[in-house]
Amino acid sequence: MPLVVVGSVALDCVETPGQTRENLLGGSAVYFSYAASYFTPVRLVGVVGDDWPGEHTELLRSRNIDTAGLEVRHGAKTFYWRGKYLDDMNVRETVDVQLNVMEDFDPVLPEPFRRSPFLFLANGSTKIQLKVLKQCPGATLSVADTMDLWIRTEREELTELLSKVNGLVLNDSEAKLLTGEANVVRAGHRVLEMGPQFVVVKKGEHGAMFFSKHETYVLPAFPTAQVVDPTGAGDSFAGGMMGYLAEQGNFQPKTLKEAMAYGILVASFTVEDFSLDRLRKIERADLERRMEEYRRMLSF
Amino acid sequence: MPLVVVGSVALDCVETPGQTRENLLGGSAVYFSYAASYFTPVRLVGVVGDDWPGEHTELLRSRNIDTAGLEVRHGAKTFYWRGKYLDDMNVRETVDVQLNVMEDFDPVLPEPFRRSPFLFLANGSTKIQLKVLKQCPGATLSVADTMDLWIRTEREELTELLSKVNGLVLNDSEAKLLTGEANVVRAGHRVLEMGPQFVVVKKGEHGAMFFSKHETYVLPAFPTAQVVDPTGAGDSFAGGMMGYLAEQGNFQPKTLKEAMAYGILVASFTVEDFSLDRLRKIERADLERRMEEYRRMLSF
Repeated sequence: MPLVVVGSVALDCVETPGQTRENLLGGSAVYFSYAASYFTPVRLVGVVGDDWPGEHTELLRSRNIDTAGLEVRHGAKTFYWRGKYLDDMNVRETVDVQLNVMEDFDPVLPEPFRRSPFLFLANGSTKIQLKVLKQCPGATLSVADTMDLWIRTEREELTELLSKVNGLVLNDSEAKLLTGEANVVRAGHRVLEMGPQFVVVKKGEHGAMFFSKHETYVLPAFPTAQVVDPTGAGDSFAGGMMGYLAEQGNFQPKTLKEAMAYGILVASFTVEDFSLDRLRKIERADLERRMEEYRRMLSF
Repeated sequence: MPLVVVGSVALDCVETPGQTRENLLGGSAVYFSYAASYFTPVRLVGVVGDDWPGEHTELLRSRNIDTAGLEVRHGAKTFYWRGKYLDDMNVRETVDVQLNVMEDFDPVLPEPFRRSPFLFLANGSTKIQLKVLKQCPGATLSVADTMDLWIRTEREELTELLSKVNGLVLNDSEAKLLTGEANVVRAGHRVLEMGPQFVVVKKGEHGAMFFSKHETYVLPAFPTAQVVDPTGAGDSFAGGMMGYLAEQGNFQPKTLKEAMAYGILVASFTVEDFSLDRLRKIERADLERRMEEYRRMLSF
């Protein structure tokens, strides 16, 4: 089933202990879309400037990602993010952010997009997430991501959003910040009380936790020795998860757990190279092979 | 099969954000022994002073832990450790350490102990670990724990130890320190190259990783909302793991993975109260119940 994602589309610069790469294709909606495209048709909503290379749009289209919702604004520049990873690759500093076209991003979804049964509100202003949600009143499943900035500055809107979406995805530190709970299990349960039917807490290299009224579980990350660039891992995780749910057309507990696993596996490929470079080299069959390894790893 | 452990026996003081508890039964060999006692007869080797309450020895004996190797030194004091946990319970500061009787701990194992087929060298001076290992030349399985102090100060001895033991257990930060590798998967493989047949990397609240020539895997911690005092979690993990291996009488890959899971589950109980207070309230059946939950959690 079609899956629509609204989020950032960016040109990134990434510094790692090994090397620095400029002008990379990035952004939450881009990583999400590509990750989801292994499973289902994706509809991307975002905005870029006229510095945006047309080949990036072509790449997305080649993956069955509908870019009708990607606005190209002339006389403006694409969102720019520059980040630096410290030695252990788990600590990241944002060196520079230039919002550019994202500053007044206020998307109007194309009419067919509004009837998408699956909706993902990638990390962005909660106010905008609410406005997008209102454009898709018939969505079967709506899930939002958020971050510390919005938890601090748009708490009221976030409370409203949490009463309206089916699911929330956020980092462990963000779950603690949102709830004031130091224990991540308690934090997950507290977020549930705010409204969503399920909460997914991302733990970076340690995997992800799932919370619903009836279930609490954790799945570890797939161990990879080749961590080149962790940028986009969280968005790829969400894309793999939502893509699989959209493919299956439901979010029953069994499907959700499989979806968590697919999210973890897509993310494990993403970090093995810069930008989408690793994902561009894999097929669904590679995901299935890693899934077999992953299932074997967790069986005893 | 009998399992011998050599390590510290301590009186701890633990400060958590919630409360401070004095004069707690602690030490690596104590947590290890109690955890292992769910599975197999244990032989404890350690030293205490005459401030050591006899009831602690009684408690251990009641669990089928042979304390013939527990030396009580008169006119001296038991090893004392005082630690403080910060708000998120994952960061710990050592506030005070008084080595006391541990300062010249140089154990001579009782004759029957030397014929134990399973041997665990809990965290302690590598020099002493080597001396103990020489006393048990016929051990079927010998596994050592270590820490940053010995990695920094007894590197040469550690190199020798790693060429002689079957397995090593250490924290993720210690694995990185020992190998100079920032990626924990690479670090695990590098430790393997130093000699042991398997390496277990403990990741605290995130579980544990296993490395052998043919296998790399990670198992998550069991998610618990009730983390009261993390002290002894790592030693309980090792005790559960080694205890199960001794019970099964082998360390085949299948047994090792089950043993890792049991270690994780014993540790998940340990952290739910101070000292051994939680473990004292559970039976093997409680471990089996949590094991069922754990297996269900990891199945999809």
